Amino acid sequence: MSPTRTAPLTNTDVAALDTAHVFHSWSAQKTLNPLALAGGSGSTVWDHEGRTYLDFSSQLVNTNIGHQHPRLIGAIKEQLDILTTVAPSHANHTRAVAAQKILSHAPSTMDKVFFTNGGADANENAIRMARLHTGRDKVISRYRSYHGNTGAAIVATGDWRRIPNEYSRGHVHVFGPYLYRSEFWAETPEQEAERALQHLRRTVELEGPQSIAAMLLETVPGTAGILLPPPGYLEGVRALCDQHGIVLILDEVMAGFGRTGDWFALDAFNVRPDLITFAKGVNSGYVPVGGVIISEEISATFNDRVFPGGLTYSGHPLAAASVVASIEAFEQENIVENAARIGADHLEPGLKALAARHEFIGEVRGRGVFWALELVEDRTTRKPVNAGFMGKLKTELLNRGLLPFIADNRVHVVPPAVVTPEEVRQALAIYDDALTAVS
Amino acid sequence: MSPTRTAPLTNTDVAALDTAHVFHSWSAQKTLNPLALAGGSGSTVWDHEGRTYLDFSSQLVNTNIGHQHPRLIGAIKEQLDILTTVAPSHANHTRAVAAQKILSHAPSTMDKVFFTNGGADANENAIRMARLHTGRDKVISRYRSYHGNTGAAIVATGDWRRIPNEYSRGHVHVFGPYLYRSEFWAETPEQEAERALQHLRRTVELEGPQSIAAMLLETVPGTAGILLPPPGYLEGVRALCDQHGIVLILDEVMAGFGRTGDWFALDAFNVRPDLITFAKGVNSGYVPVGGVIISEEISATFNDRVFPGGLTYSGHPLAAASVVASIEAFEQENIVENAARIGADHLEPGLKALAARHEFIGEVRGRGVFWALELVEDRTTRKPVNAGFMGKLKTELLNRGLLPFIADNRVHVVPPAVVTPEEVRQALAIYDDALTAVS
Ligand SMILES: Cc1ncc(COP(=O)(O)O)c(C=O)c1O
Ligand SMILES: Cc1ncc(COP(=O)(O)O)c(C=O)c1O
Repeated sequence: MSPTRTAPLTNTDVAALDTAHVFHSWSAQKTLNPLALAGGSGSTVWDHEGRTYLDFSSQLVNTNIGHQHPRLIGAIKEQLDILTTVAPSHANHTRAVAAQKILSHAPSTMDKVFFTNGGADANENAIRMARLHTGRDKVISRYRSYHGNTGAAIVATGDWRRIPNEYSRGHVHVFGPYLYRSEFWAETPEQEAERALQHLRRTVELEGPQSIAAMLLETVPGTAGILLPPPGYLEGVRALCDQHGIVLILDEVMAGFGRTGDWFALDAFNVRPDLITFAKGVNSGYVPVGGVIISEEISATFNDRVFPGGLTYSGHPLAAASVVASIEAFEQENIVENAARIGADHLEPGLKALAARHEFIGEVRGRGVFWALELVEDRTTRKPVNAGFMGKLKTELLNRGLLPFIADNRVHVVPPAVVTPEEVRQALAIYDDALTAVS
Repeated sequence: MSPTRTAPLTNTDVAALDTAHVFHSWSAQKTLNPLALAGGSGSTVWDHEGRTYLDFSSQLVNTNIGHQHPRLIGAIKEQLDILTTVAPSHANHTRAVAAQKILSHAPSTMDKVFFTNGGADANENAIRMARLHTGRDKVISRYRSYHGNTGAAIVATGDWRRIPNEYSRGHVHVFGPYLYRSEFWAETPEQEAERALQHLRRTVELEGPQSIAAMLLETVPGTAGILLPPPGYLEGVRALCDQHGIVLILDEVMAGFGRTGDWFALDAFNVRPDLITFAKGVNSGYVPVGGVIISEEISATFNDRVFPGGLTYSGHPLAAASVVASIEAFEQENIVENAARIGADHLEPGLKALAARHEFIGEVRGRGVFWALELVEDRTTRKPVNAGFMGKLKTELLNRGLLPFIADNRVHVVPPAVVTPEEVRQALAIYDDALTAVS
C-alpha cells in the first residue's frame, strides 16, 4: 500500500514519523518541531488537518512558479511515460531542449549547459572549470554568501556554516557592499560600491592576481540578506576580472529565473559573467536539478581536453522535462513580468508602508519577489532584534496562516513569482498584525 | 509545444542538438559521439530509429529495477498530484516512509536516514558526520575506488579523476585486496586479505590513529573493477576501526539494493558499518536521490549539536515516492532473489564458459548482477588489452544490440536485477560473437 493512500494522518503522526527516521539539515535533531506539509497549490500550502498557509517562503526560495503548476506536472508525467532515467553519456532529446531553452534566456556569449542535481554541485563544477581554465588555485567569495554544502561550495560560503567544514583549500573571503551595515564607513551607494571595489582590488593584489582562478559571487546575495549590489559594483568586479584573467562566476541559484523580476538577476546590470550557476527557480525544484551555464571561451577549453567532473544524474530526463515546461510557462504566462510588477506595484509600496508603521523595521530592500525586512531594536544604532523576537514573530505569522522565511534578524518576503496582488494584500495584513503582536 | 511531441527525430538530429548545447561529464567535448536514447523498458532501451539494445550497463549501473517499472512510474505520478516539492525543514509523510523503508533493510544498529541528491553528496555528508563525530581530520580510502565528483568525494576517489581535483585536505589512499593484480605479492585469497589488512594497519599506525576520522570503502569496488573483498578483509577493517575509534563508512552507492544479490552488499559479510551511503539502486535513478544511513551512535552525536550540512532537495517528495515504490516492488517481486539466482545459475556459469572459449578473458569475477570480465593480452603476464581493443569490442557489442559497460580493460556485465534467464542467454551469445569478431 502506498503511503500517500493511507487513512487520514494527523500532523502529529507525520511529524513523529519524520523525526523518528529522517535526519534533518542544519539542525540539532532533538530540537526539531517540523511543520507537516501535505499538499500545495500556487502560493498556498496545507497540512494534514486542513490548515492552509500562504507560502511566502517559496519553501527554500525555490518554488518560483508556485506549487503544483499543471504544465510542469503534465510534462513530468509525459516524460515518465517515455524514459525516466538515462546515463549522461548518451544523448537525450529532452535534455538537449532543456539546455537550449536555458541558453535562450542567458547572455548571448554563453555556449553550453552542464547539468547537476542542485546548487552546491553546480558551484563545485563551476569552480572546477575556472581552476582548470586558468591553471590557478584560489577562489574569492564573500563573507555574506551561501553557495551550498559540498566540499568547495561550503568553504566558498561565508556564513557560520562554513566554519565546521573548512577542509577545502584555496578560498579567500572578502566583504561585499551592504550599505545598511557598511564595512567601509560609506554613506552613499556610490561610496559603498567604490570602497567595496577598492577592498576587493587590494585583496586581489595582495593574494596575487596570478593565483586567483575565480570570483564566485551571488549576483544578489540571498540567504545573507537580499543585498542588491549598488550601481557600478558588478561592473567594477567584471573589469577587475578582465584585468587579471580571473573567471567571474555569478551564482544565480536563488536570484535567477524570475526571482528579481528578470530572467537572470544579472540582466539588471551591465555585467557578463563567464559562468552562471543555477538551480531552484529553473524548475522550481519539481525535480532536483541545477547546473552551470558556460561561456564560449571556457567551453572551448574543454573541446580537446577532458573535463574531469560528472555525476550519474547529470541531465536527468524528468528534470529536463520540468525545465522545458517551466521555461515555456514563464514565457507564455509572463511570469517574470508578473514578478517585476508585483515588486514595483505591490511589495515595494506595501512593505514601505509597513516600515512607516513599525519602528523596528530598519530597512526594506529588494526587487521583484525578493525582499527583506531588516528588524532592529533601534533605528539609530541598527542593533538587530534578538533570536527570541524572531521566534515569536515566526509563531505569530504561522498562527495567522503565513509560512515565513526567517534568517537572522530578517524576514525575507519571497513568495512565488506567480503570486497575485490579492495574496500580497493578505500577506501584508498578516505581517502587519504579527509585527503589532510582537511589539 | 513539448519537445517529446515533436515530429519524428533521427538519431543524428538528437545527437547534434545534444552536443551543440549540453556539456558532457568526463569528456573532451569535441570527441563526443553519443548514442541517442529515446526510450526503454525493463532490460531494453531503444533509439529514435527503432533500434533496440539489451541494456547490460544498467546505464551507470543504476537501473536495478529496469527501465520504466510501472509501479515506480505510478507512485511518482501519484505524488506529482499531491505535492511535488517541499523544503527539508518541514515534515513530509512520503519522505518519512521512504526513510523507514530503507532502514527496514539496513543493519538493526542503524537509526536514521539523511537524504541527498546522489552518491557524491551522500559521501560528502558521511565524511562530514565522521569528522564531527570523531573531532578528527583524515579520511582513508582506496586507490581503486570512485566516490563522486564533489569536493571531498572526488579526492577520496582513487582513480585518475582525483588527480586534477585535489583541493580537499586530509585524504590518505591505500591499496585494497585485488588478488588478480595483487599489490602484496599474495597468492591466495587468505594471504591477500591478511596482507591488505597489514598494509592498512601500518598506514593507520604511521598516519596516526588519533588523526583518522573515517575509512571510506566501497563494500565491493564497482567502477574500479568489481573487486569482491576476500574472506576476512572487511571484518578485519571493522576490528581496526573499533580499535582506534575510526568511523567505518561503506559506500553502497553502486553495490547496494540488489546489485550483488543481497539488499546491501555488506549483508554477505560479517561487518557492521557506522555509516552507509546509497544512491543508484535505491530507486534506480528514476528521480535523483542518494543518502546516508546513520548508526544510533553517530545519530546521537547530533541530538543536541547542530549538524552543519544540508541541501535544498534533501528528502524530495518525488524521490521519496519512487524509493518507497521501488523497495515495495523489490520485496513483492523478489527482485533481490532474482539477482542472486541470475548470478549463480546463469551469469557465473555463462561467463565462465565464455572464458573457457576466449583466451583473452583473464578473470571472471562477481556476484548477483555485478560481474567483470578482465581482458588480457596474455594469461601469464596478465597484461591488459589496450584501449583500441576495447573500442573495437564496444562497437561489435553495440552493432549486435547490446549496450555494454566498459571500464579500462574490462567489460562489466551489469544488467538490471530484473533481467531474465532468456535475456542473459541472448547477451552471452552477443558477448561470445563480439569477442570472436575482435580476436
Ligand atoms: C545562492 C545559492 N547558491 C547555492 C545554493 C545551494 O543549492 P542546493 O541547496 O540546491 O545545493 C543555495 C541554496 O540555498 C543558494 O541560495
Ligand atoms: C561507489 C560510488 N560512489 C559514489 C558515486 C557517485 O554517485 P553520483 O554520481 O550519484 O554522485 C558512484 C557513481 O558512480 C559510485 O559508483
